[in-house]
Amino acid sequence: MKQLERINQINDIKKLNYEEKIELAKEIREFLIDKVSKNGGHLASNLGVVELTISLCNVFDFTKDKIIFDVGHQSYVYKILTGRKDQFDQLRKYKGLRGFPYKKESPYDYFETGHSSTSISAAVGMARARDIQKEDYHVVAFIGDGSISSGMSLEAINDLGFRKTKLIIILNDNGMSISSNVGGISSYLSRLSLNERYIKIKNKIKYSLDDTKLGNISFKFLSRIKDGIRKILVPSKYFEDMGLTYIGPIDGHNISEIEKVLKRAKKVEGPVLIHTVTKKGKGYHFAEKIPEKYHGVSTFDKEIGIQENDKETYTSMFGKAITKLAAKDEKIVAITAAMQDGVGLTEFAKKFPNRYFDVGISEEHAVTLAAGMAVGKLKPVFAVYSTFLQRGFDQLVHDICMQNSNVVFAIDRAGLVGPDGETHQGIFDLSYLSMIPNMTILAPKCMEEVEKLLKWSMDQNFPVAIRYPRGGDYLKMKPLTKVSLGKWEVITKGKDLAIIATGKMVQKAYQVIEQEHLDITLINATFIKPLDQKMLKEIASKYSYILTIEDNIISGGLGHQILLSLNALDYQGKVKILGFPNKFIEQGTIDELYQQEHLDNASIQKEIRDLLKKKQKKSHSH
Amino acid sequence: MKQLERINQINDIKKLNYEEKIELAKEIREFLIDKVSKNGGHLASNLGVVELTISLCNVFDFTKDKIIFDVGHQSYVYKILTGRKDQFDQLRKYKGLRGFPYKKESPYDYFETGHSSTSISAAVGMARARDIQKEDYHVVAFIGDGSISSGMSLEAINDLGFRKTKLIIILNDNGMSISSNVGGISSYLSRLSLNERYIKIKNKIKYSLDDTKLGNISFKFLSRIKDGIRKILVPSKYFEDMGLTYIGPIDGHNISEIEKVLKRAKKVEGPVLIHTVTKKGKGYHFAEKIPEKYHGVSTFDKEIGIQENDKETYTSMFGKAITKLAAKDEKIVAITAAMQDGVGLTEFAKKFPNRYFDVGISEEHAVTLAAGMAVGKLKPVFAVYSTFLQRGFDQLVHDICMQNSNVVFAIDRAGLVGPDGETHQGIFDLSYLSMIPNMTILAPKCMEEVEKLLKWSMDQNFPVAIRYPRGGDYLKMKPLTKVSLGKWEVITKGKDLAIIATGKMVQKAYQVIEQEHLDITLINATFIKPLDQKMLKEIASKYSYILTIEDNIISGGLGHQILLSLNALDYQGKVKILGFPNKFIEQGTIDELYQQEHLDNASIQKEIRDLLKKKQKKSHSH
Repeated sequence: MKQLERINQINDIKKLNYEEKIELAKEIREFLIDKVSKNGGHLASNLGVVELTISLCNVFDFTKDKIIFDVGHQSYVYKILTGRKDQFDQLRKYKGLRGFPYKKESPYDYFETGHSSTSISAAVGMARARDIQKEDYHVVAFIGDGSISSGMSLEAINDLGFRKTKLIIILNDNGMSISSNVGGISSYLSRLSLNERYIKIKNKIKYSLDDTKLGNISFKFLSRIKDGIRKILVPSKYFEDMGLTYIGPIDGHNISEIEKVLKRAKKVEGPVLIHTVTKKGKGYHFAEKIPEKYHGVSTFDKEIGIQENDKETYTSMFGKAITKLAAKDEKIVAITAAMQDGVGLTEFAKKFPNRYFDVGISEEHAVTLAAGMAVGKLKPVFAVYSTFLQRGFDQLVHDICMQNSNVVFAIDRAGLVGPDGETHQGIFDLSYLSMIPNMTILAPKCMEEVEKLLKWSMDQNFPVAIRYPRGGDYLKMKPLTKVSLGKWEVITKGKDLAIIATGKMVQKAYQVIEQEHLDITLINATFIKPLDQKMLKEIASKYSYILTIEDNIISGGLGHQILLSLNALDYQGKVKILGFPNKFIEQGTIDELYQQEHLDNASIQKEIRDLLKKKQKKSHSH
Repeated sequence: MKQLERINQINDIKKLNYEEKIELAKEIREFLIDKVSKNGGHLASNLGVVELTISLCNVFDFTKDKIIFDVGHQSYVYKILTGRKDQFDQLRKYKGLRGFPYKKESPYDYFETGHSSTSISAAVGMARARDIQKEDYHVVAFIGDGSISSGMSLEAINDLGFRKTKLIIILNDNGMSISSNVGGISSYLSRLSLNERYIKIKNKIKYSLDDTKLGNISFKFLSRIKDGIRKILVPSKYFEDMGLTYIGPIDGHNISEIEKVLKRAKKVEGPVLIHTVTKKGKGYHFAEKIPEKYHGVSTFDKEIGIQENDKETYTSMFGKAITKLAAKDEKIVAITAAMQDGVGLTEFAKKFPNRYFDVGISEEHAVTLAAGMAVGKLKPVFAVYSTFLQRGFDQLVHDICMQNSNVVFAIDRAGLVGPDGETHQGIFDLSYLSMIPNMTILAPKCMEEVEKLLKWSMDQNFPVAIRYPRGGDYLKMKPLTKVSLGKWEVITKGKDLAIIATGKMVQKAYQVIEQEHLDITLINATFIKPLDQKMLKEIASKYSYILTIEDNIISGGLGHQILLSLNALDYQGKVKILGFPNKFIEQGTIDELYQQEHLDNASIQKEIRDLLKKKQKKSHSH
């Protein structure tokens, strides 16, 4: 690691010559494979952008120039080059190096990302701030081909091209977002990249330019010559129609070519888009072969690659359930927004290609597409991560719930997700879903309930959301035998206290009750909305202490809704709500985070003990 | 109204010959001008689509074919042609004809709209449902040039073009959405429309086709000939790059041309976009001149047109305030998503064109653009209607609040808006904003407070939302003298009861208290978040009955949040929360709707009386 040793702070890269940079790229790849295989993280995307990031950090000065990494999981190389390589042993760990850009971590992380397609909007904002205040620096948005075809990016490009704000967009085109890419823009991009005739002519120009020492000629002029040729040869000009100067496609692994283009792009007035073609997973043969498998990974043996893991999870249970149900009902269709594997739809996609719709990173469209399908009498299921469904909030209100359509939302990664941190914790869905009229919300208390809940949801004539967490169960529980609208399940009966919990939190509460031999009623709130008002009334009349437990923020969540109902019932007892406070929750293992937020078993046990003590005290004082 | 008399149910239009349809168009315009001038409603957009809608209803059979009107305020002509003309005297009135498509109103309204850019997604969903179930009908999405450049539409087109779903998109291009149009796509469209050379050649083709009786030739072949010509002459081919067959531009007021194209488009496999050029406000000279003034209107005298109205509203107060503050602080910038006039930014736009950003119908981009500007040390204010900000929910969470940026959201039309109905009532913002960590929420109790609150908001280092209602005040109140974070204001002091109200609801409560000479404490919750915990504690210790009043749904709103705090304080008294139940609220005057939802003064008075009675009873029983 001769070259990597020389990289200790920002701009150290500028000391390396061309050959040393080539060597550095090799070392960074080894470093990444080693660190990520040991700690988990995003691998393939970072391996693909090594040369691009080296070139960017060399040509720009990010002590004053600004860069925004879209989604941000491909910022590892940037972290290495801006003085953070020594923190990689703590990558994505509790209090450790973030897996995404993070302002508090470095003054060179200018904007935090995690969700897709925000970079161009933010960059346009920064660039306009620069121009209004007559400052002088470059703003670079670094974005993948999956992210750029999302609606938000297109809105930003639409605005950018109209006002011609000076800005550089690096389009990192690896022909896939997380899984393989879909959509008109993507197929357009691939037509562009594969136009051999253009590539050949382009090389000829480059060649002749290099040879005749035209290097000093202004890039504007140069691009005008090239332009004339491109206009004939490139199949079409999407970005130029939008008002951007388009340069490319160029080889994203060729440092000298990239640097040459970047230097020229700096001089272009108005917005420029540099279309680079890269290989996801580059330099690690396992990842080159199946890059999506090496997108976000857990620890693995770098010599043999990732091995199949057939441990059941909520995701796999959902995948099996929908595939099984779809075999019997031709009306069932599945929708994903570029997360086929993540949400467990790979098998479904294989078996029912005509009823499977990967719409790309387009959650807004996905929600309303499902609404249209429901109007057309299909049974659409949109499988989506809790935190990404936030993108479709207005559509949930306006197109799903206002029209009361039977669309099923299979909400994965609800609750804490762990090492992905703030941007990925699914701790808001109970709140943003509960507030929408006509929405019904369910949660399985164990994996075995997923199929039953899914089947029930499809058979209704109103929208239903089923939320379930990342991973599998703590313990095996007896699944529900029957689902009835708004009906809760009594798990244990006792006299001291009533606990109402939802989802996997039921398992936690059950563990505590069993372990401590407590005389407590435990209720599984299968329905977060509507609440079981009948059971609630019964509980209110029997218990002077009620404890609620959920893996969601308290504000607007299950306990908060229960409190509202109890208030309407004139409940005189004490209600204690366990959930997350109104803040964002950082990265760490799920267990570490539960501990931090006092939702681990020991904390729940302590809460129960405290309530029982209070109760005793009160009954004595009576 | 000879022809209009013949139009009494769907497909009656098919009985009319060409000349009669021309006559009908004229009669419909007269009818619309008459009805809308008497009742208010959307005028200019409907005047622009008379011929288009007549042609669509003639060529298609909407008893089986489906049409979706994007945004939907331009569906009046469709309502007339599908048997609803007799209901126009009740247009937008309580329990009357809706101003938007509404399923319960007609079996021919297939999808409800109100917010922009949902039509293509829904149409794609319906078309795929048709194909999967091997049914046979056409699906038409009718969309304006403003709506089609929104991210959601582009996501839908991206998916549509990729999978080549058979579908007809009518692009109604009137060169403006609500106010004048912005963005790369829009300027691209205008280049397209104005290409005179193309128009000329196209007419030549049409001419020769008509003359040589080539009418029976398959449209596919025809479009291939035309295509060859278009490829040379039309400046670029945005929609074709996306995978759509593009036809146009055609004159959207020429019934015979439109019908010819529609008949041919029916035969095209895969997605077709028909680009029609129309004139907003067509046929009413006042509206043709200033179409944006005749977009959504109140009643007016049709002979003299709309007269200037200089009544102050929250919107005008905001417009004045930001213009005044911006004169003193060059860092202040304003953003709107195609609602310049609606949000009161016309004066600002004129005075500070370089600091004014109309991004088109792009709420997602607008929010993150503001985030980028805040990072760049500007003071961005995004002025937006409550219900449209829902589109930026994920961006509020992810780009604004997670990064804790000082962006100010000036949220207009919060609370009930009246005749626009379900899709436009701003009754969710307190809930979806309260749940987001780091968000601060303010509401002025009277118009005079807008400037003070705005100034305060700009001076913080965290995100702030100021929400205010449509229209003006009920009565003049003494404005706040000082704003302090999380501090409430005591309006009246009394011993019987404490009322905590927000925004204009403070005025309602005050009216009741004054009128009835009640001995009640009235608190203005200037801050909805954070709550004034200190004052809340004081109230909890003094009052055994607390009443909260807000113009938002109860779930997740002010009262619900207060209840949470009181629960944490172990409050033993009674809390009554007044707000909207968990349902969508229909159209009507604001007063009618308050009455329906028991938030009119009489209902508030009754609530107070009930609480006082209960209190008395309880104190007697002690």
